[in-house]
Parts: sequence; C-alpha cells; structure tokens
Amino acid sequence: MISLRRGRIVRMTTVAANTTASPALIRDLQQVVGEPNVVWKPEDLHLYEYDGSIDRARPRVVVIPGSAEEAAECVKVANQHDAYIVPRGAGTGLSGGAIPLRDSVVIGLARLNRVLEVDTDNRVAIVEPGLVNLDLSNHVEQFGLYYAPDPSSQRACTIGGNVAENAGGPHCLAQGTTTNHVLGIEVVLADGSLMWLGGPARETAGYDLRGAFIGSEGTFGIVTKVAVRLLPIPEKIHTVLAAFTTLDAASQTVSDIIAAGIVPAALEMMDRVTIDACEPVYHPGYPAEAEAVLIVELDGLTESVDEGYEIVERICNENGAMELREASDPARRADLWATRKGAIGAFGTVAPSYYLVDGVVPRTKLQEVMRQVKAVGDELELTIGNVFHAGDGNLHPCILFNERNVDEVKRVIQAGERILEICVEHGGALSGEHGIGIEKQAYMPLVFTEDDMDAMKGLREAFLNPLHGDEQPASETGSTPVSERFNPGKIFPGGANHGEAYGITEHSVRRAHRGDEV
Amino acid sequence: MISLRRGRIVRMTTVAANTTASPALIRDLQQVVGEPNVVWKPEDLHLYEYDGSIDRARPRVVVIPGSAEEAAECVKVANQHDAYIVPRGAGTGLSGGAIPLRDSVVIGLARLNRVLEVDTDNRVAIVEPGLVNLDLSNHVEQFGLYYAPDPSSQRACTIGGNVAENAGGPHCLAQGTTTNHVLGIEVVLADGSLMWLGGPARETAGYDLRGAFIGSEGTFGIVTKVAVRLLPIPEKIHTVLAAFTTLDAASQTVSDIIAAGIVPAALEMMDRVTIDACEPVYHPGYPAEAEAVLIVELDGLTESVDEGYEIVERICNENGAMELREASDPARRADLWATRKGAIGAFGTVAPSYYLVDGVVPRTKLQEVMRQVKAVGDELELTIGNVFHAGDGNLHPCILFNERNVDEVKRVIQAGERILEICVEHGGALSGEHGIGIEKQAYMPLVFTEDDMDAMKGLREAFLNPLHGDEQPASETGSTPVSERFNPGKIFPGGANHGEAYGITEHSVRRAHRGDEV
Repeated sequence: MISLRRGRIVRMTTVAANTTASPALIRDLQQVVGEPNVVWKPEDLHLYEYDGSIDRARPRVVVIPGSAEEAAECVKVANQHDAYIVPRGAGTGLSGGAIPLRDSVVIGLARLNRVLEVDTDNRVAIVEPGLVNLDLSNHVEQFGLYYAPDPSSQRACTIGGNVAENAGGPHCLAQGTTTNHVLGIEVVLADGSLMWLGGPARETAGYDLRGAFIGSEGTFGIVTKVAVRLLPIPEKIHTVLAAFTTLDAASQTVSDIIAAGIVPAALEMMDRVTIDACEPVYHPGYPAEAEAVLIVELDGLTESVDEGYEIVERICNENGAMELREASDPARRADLWATRKGAIGAFGTVAPSYYLVDGVVPRTKLQEVMRQVKAVGDELELTIGNVFHAGDGNLHPCILFNERNVDEVKRVIQAGERILEICVEHGGALSGEHGIGIEKQAYMPLVFTEDDMDAMKGLREAFLNPLHGDEQPASETGSTPVSERFNPGKIFPGGANHGEAYGITEHSVRRAHRGDEV
Repeated sequence: MISLRRGRIVRMTTVAANTTASPALIRDLQQVVGEPNVVWKPEDLHLYEYDGSIDRARPRVVVIPGSAEEAAECVKVANQHDAYIVPRGAGTGLSGGAIPLRDSVVIGLARLNRVLEVDTDNRVAIVEPGLVNLDLSNHVEQFGLYYAPDPSSQRACTIGGNVAENAGGPHCLAQGTTTNHVLGIEVVLADGSLMWLGGPARETAGYDLRGAFIGSEGTFGIVTKVAVRLLPIPEKIHTVLAAFTTLDAASQTVSDIIAAGIVPAALEMMDRVTIDACEPVYHPGYPAEAEAVLIVELDGLTESVDEGYEIVERICNENGAMELREASDPARRADLWATRKGAIGAFGTVAPSYYLVDGVVPRTKLQEVMRQVKAVGDELELTIGNVFHAGDGNLHPCILFNERNVDEVKRVIQAGERILEICVEHGGALSGEHGIGIEKQAYMPLVFTEDDMDAMKGLREAFLNPLHGDEQPASETGSTPVSERFNPGKIFPGGANHGEAYGITEHSVRRAHRGDEV
C-alpha cells in the first residue's frame, strides 16, 4: 500500500520466507538454463523479495533463462512441480506486480535484454523483454528513431515490464501508452507453448489477443519477444517551464493550452509542497512565491514548434505566469526536466516516508480533485505533495509521513483510500499507469462490479485454459489452480490475504533509495 | 468471396431462405420493442439478407430495439428461443460480417443513432452504435472537433460497425484505427446483461476488455453505447495530388516522404488501371502518360503544414512528378479527393464485376508485392486495378471481370487467393481493415496455426461463457452452442460451410450500386 524510496514501509510475508525449493525442482531448472542461472540459496533469494512497492515475499526459487525457448521450458518444469510462476523484469513496478506470492518460481528476464532486429524502413524493432526502456531509444538513436513510452523509471524499467503494466510516462499525453506502440508479442502460455500475438505488420486479422494481453500484469503468461513501433526523432523539441502564483492559474493554463488545439508532447505540474522539497536538493531557483510550476514540451517540425511556443507563451502570460524559462538544446532541456524527474526522490528529504497514489481523472476535474485532495490532507493533518501528468489527468499525490508514527501511518492509509474514492467519484480510474497488483486490489470494487470482475477472470481463463485439448499443464491434477498459474494473488480483491499463509502480518521498515520511478 | 457494387456475385443460402420465425418468437420480441419494430414477413426480410459482401442469407426475424435495455431484452428472448443472434449496423461491411447465417435473429441498431453526450472540454462523446460515422463528425464540428477514423463508407457505415470491424480509413495512417479512438463501450453479453468495458477516462485499471472486444466482428456481443475520443479540427489541411510516369516513382515518393520524418494525415495511391477507369467518369484530367497518382494530405498548425508541403513538393519533384495540384480550401480539397473516393465505383464502368482484395504488407514491400500482383493478373489474364492506402501498406487490388464468364470467375478466385498468399509471404496480414467474416475464413490457416485459433476461440469463450455462475443463457440446454451465440459461423475456417444447411450452393448475380465503401 505504501510506496517510497528513501524510507519505506514493507509488508513482509511470514511463512514463505522460510520455504525453499525441492532439490528436484532446482535440478530440473538447472538442466534447462545451466547451474549459474538458478538462484536458490536463501541469502541470494533475498534480492528477489522486493519490487518498487511496499510488499515483499520470498520466491521459492529464481530461474534466469537465456532464450524464449528456455523460458518456455522453465514454465513446463514449474508445471511438473505444481508451482506458481511470477515473471520479473527490473522490479521497478509500484503496485507489487513482481512480488512472488504463494511460494512462486520467479522467472527473471534479465538475460533476455537484446535488440534482435531493427527495421528502420518500416520503423519496427524486435526486442527481448529484459531490455531496459531507455537502452532501446539509445540504440535506435543512430537511425534517427526513438521509442515513445517513457516511464520516469525508463533508465531501469524493462520493455517486458512496460508491456505487463501498459506503462505510460510524461510523453504519453501525445503518443499514448505502451499498447499503442507494441505491434506484437511472443509469449509463453500456461502449457509452456510459445505463441506470437499480433506481429510486425501494422494491422492483423482475427481477435486482438495482443491488445488483451498488454496490461495483464503478468497474469496471462510471460512475454519473450516484443515487436515495437519506433518514431522518428522530432526535428525540434522545445521545453517551457512556467511558474505561477496559484495552482488554479497553472491548471487554467493547462486547460487553455489544450483548448487552443495544441497537443504538447508533455504537460507536467508540480505544486508548492513539491517545489519546497526540491529547492534545497536541486536548487532550481524557482520564484519564492511560486505555488505551481508547469513544464510544457512541444515537438515536431521547427516552424510548428515555434508557432506552438508563441501560443503557449501567450497563454502562460495571460494566466499571470511569474517566470518563463525555455530551451531547445538537449543539455538545457535536461536541466528544466531535472527537478520534475527527481521530485519524488526529493520528498525523502522532507519526511522519512511517502505514499504515492496513482489515480486518473478527466482533465477538467483536475482543479476540483486537487482541492479535495488538499482538504483530505488538511483534515487528516498530513502533508501531500502533488507532482503529476497534468495533460491527461494522471494525478500522483504523495503523502509524506514518518512510518514510526503508528497513528500517522493509519491516517496515511485512510488518506490514500479517500483520494482514490475522490478520483472515482469524479469519473476517474484507480490507476493511471502503475497497475493494480497487490496495492490496489482491495479497491477494485470501487469501480468494478462482481460481473465486471468475473468478465475479467473469464478473459484470464481464456489465456490460462485455452482450448488446447491435448496438452494440458501437468499440474492439472495438482493443487495449484491453472487459472492462477501466473502471478497468483494479484489484481482481484482478496488475492493477497484470502486465508493464505502469506498474509500481511507485520510492518517493518526498509531504507533504500531506488531512484525516481514516477 | 467477391465484393462488387454495380454487378456482383452472390452466394445464396438455400435452406434458411425458407425458414420463418415461430409466432411465439415474434410475439415475445414485439412485447419488448413494439409491433412495428419486428420485421418477420418474408418479403420484408429480403432487405436484411445482404451486406457489402457477396454473401447472402435470410434472417429468421429482424428486431430493431430503441434502447440498450431493449437490445439486452431481445438477447434474452432469443436465448429463450434457442436462436443465434447477429447484430447489424448499416450493412456496409465487405467481408460478410452482417450476414445472418444459421437462421439467426438479426438485431438491427438503426434506431440507436443518437449522440447522447458531448464533453467538449475533455473531448469525449457518448454515442449510440447506429450513429453514422460522418454524422458524428458533422455534429461535433460546431465545437471545432471531429472523429478521426474515416472509412470511405463513412457516409453510410455506423460507429457500432466500425467498433466490430476495428475500421480504418484513408486518415488512419497518422491517427490509428477505431481502437485508438474508442475509450469505452457498453455491450450486451450472451446472458443479456449490459456491461461497460473501459469508460470515458483515458486510462482504466484491470484487463483491457475494451481492447479485446474491438474488432471481434460481432461475435462477442452487441455494442449499445460507445465513448469516443474526439480531436480538434486541424488549423490547416493541405492536400497535394501528384502524377508520376511510373508506379515505382510513386512508391519511392511514399518511402521518401515517410523517411523525411513526415507523417501525412493520408497517403493514397491509384494506378494506371484505376486512372483509366476514373477518367471518363470523373474527368479529373490527369496527364495522359500518368502511370500512378498519389494523394498526400498534411494537417496541423499552419506553419507546420506549410513547411511539410515544401518538403513533399521537393520529394515529388525529385521523383519526377509530372504534375502537382494542391489545395487548402475545403471545396478544392474535395475535388482532389473525389476521384480517389469514387475510384471503386468507376470500376463498374470497365467490367460488370470486381473482386476487391484487402491485404496488408509492410510498407517497404509495397513495390515488390505490386509487381507480383501484376504478374498474377498477367498470368491469369485478368485486369487488376490498384487503389490503396499506400502509407500503411494496405493494398486494395481490384480484380475486374465478367461474372457470366464461368472460367473467368474461377481465375478471379484463384487470383484472390494468390494475392493474399503473396501478402502473407511478405510479412503481411489477411485483412487491413475489412475483417475476416465469411469472406476470408478459409484463409485464416495461411497466417494462424491451430493453436493460434484455439487461443482466439478461448478469448471468445471468455466473453460468451464468463464466470457469471447464477445466470446462464437459457439455451444452455438447447442445441445452439453458447460460444457461437453471436454471429455464428464467422471468422474461423469451416464456419460457413461446415456441414450446415446454409452451405454455399449457388452463384447468382445481383446488380446494385452501394456506394464507394473502400
């Protein structure tokens, strides 16, 4: 439930931590991937207990395949041993998607990190799931191309993890999320078979299995190859930073820019709490009276960007902007972005812990929702910083607190729930881009009926129990239900504490700086 | 298998044409929608036997609900009578999606044609499925907005049909297809329950049921409401028409424009056969030696369009364009488009019939594939016109023929198969935008394995047999399998002639002009 970098609350499993894999399972996996690529000693497994969320559970064993075929074989071995399977990318997820509940076998995709093919003419690349997001853009830069979805964790997170969570990022306002940039995926299904869903062609016939799989948070299978669409690097990119005396003026500026028919490449906002946290860390030198800072990025053909900038500048001034900074060259643009990209990290200097809420509301409801979020903070005596994707209404309120103050922790959890309720009341959604995982499964009933969730489970059933007929998973007769074979206990309410041995039983504190992943 | 407007081959069902609905079914449906909205007399049902394809089958009965709730009740009544159900929009589809195989109850959506809500600030509209595509753009024009997907049949086809087929159009090169513009859909499921998949918020949590449903060709359920994303009308639209002495020069121009980093709003091509067909009908006055005509459309901010046009003009000239025409004002732009939009209709003046093939190949394979398509025509002594979405590699070869020449018809069918095989060999797909329906189900094994198709059937199962538990469709004990409840016999091989009474048994000729739907 609580996401933080510097200090963090951790929910620890009590039972799973003591389990170990059977020698037979370890041996069978070693035969597939080689001895060094199976992690089974308790002291080594420790590294795989965490992701970017506050949850924690020890895997039964971790196996790191070197090819799609090896990954498929690992699934077959896990089936033979009647074990659950959790795929793992970089572990930067914020909702607990990579936490191995139920004594799972973790299939780590770190070795599958190659760019297999770049077709510059058709602007398509085939990559492996363990490839780090930014490494892809860096690799294709030589061809004048880039990969659009850019989660703030892009220096660490992987393309496979992005597919699992349908990841967004600051630049998804104009370009859409991962699903709009992935043409096809090769996956391992529950029976250990490999299958391509979609493909490098821009359109495919038949049902959109690709679209159904993207965003399924590792519960449908394991991604082993990804065909991505690449975009030409824009001729010009211009970044504008504007400071305002009120949050409302900044919000109005966002509305006015969109109303003027401009679709900025990014449109990001930071509030006073965030500015105060960042000033001593990054020394951006924002005006002392600034209550909100807006970052607007425009890209495209030079004249188009220049024309757009004139309009943005005028709108900022009309809304009383105190200061405008702008840059086109990469180094100065990086300067303007540095504070925004590091904002979450800076909260660590204000309070030992923070809880990051990820909700989405229609853009026009932003001002009202932010007012109500502030009221929640005032009432529960909590400091809440706001740093978010203003253009598409994706809020990221950060509740700052001290996890050693038990009463405060209770109020933080209460505030988190209230904020999500406010988002839903205003026509919004539970998650903008971080997924449900463990973190938000209890809130699913806020937006989905039992029937809705049954339909979702039916979709999962379609992937886990396809009409394969002859080749059923070996554990068909075992105790682990096939429909939860992959990443069990996630997304649906009750999954993570439904009478299971790994129930959330204690809070402990871990201190770690994991970078700026929002 | 054969699509044509002026003259057409029709595959007629022999048995279904004689069936009629039971008085009890008619009465039960009349109680839901009122007497005038149930069509049951054989002479009236005749109108519902066709769509834009060459297939034909008589419905058991046609019911035209006036609300989503009535549509849901109609599904329940059909269940009680153990009947299959086929949803129907405008019937403009080219692959037989609206043909009521297996003595189905047709649920016509013509009365559900309202714009229910326009949220101009968030640029979202809620509309009914029977709304004509162009009527939506016309309605929101007053707010400076439009709906991007524009099938050439947009004056007739409906938003619900577009969702079923995931329709594209000339302007989908820059904007993507229907799935990129639909935020949520309300649907009737197999048990007659209504459910929203996705919603007006830009991102939603949980599995992407919306994405899985779009493009399912009416086999998952009936769309009753659609939340669409609207776009601001571009500040400037500039259309360029260029004539070339060779097809290769035109194809190279397409490649060069894309390589220059320009993403035109549309990029369309017509070949010599098409030009020859159009000249006497529309008198565009293209140069006599023109072997190919290209239409390039740019839109956006004025200066961006102007800058883009300079580049396009230069590239056209470098590739030896014989003539350039350009226009920004709506009337002159419509003139430039008229020939392209009417091209398919003009084929009717050259030969009594045509068969339109809809395949997709990677853009860089266009030249090679077009050469092979021409070779197929030469070998089989057939005239093939090409008019297509060049920018995204979506071919539309039109094989012109006389359906009274039995030998020629055989060669046409052979050519159609060969062309699809060529597309697949070059990494393409069976369908760019028209769907599989009846027309292409026999070709599915060209690109999909049995396992692939089983996975697709599993997805269908997820929608048709969700884990609803308490409320199973009434016909659970009847003779119609629930998994084929909606639009039976479509998409998968064997569906339309798998020992069923409605087998394709005769070819007859129908002459009708249905407009320019490509």
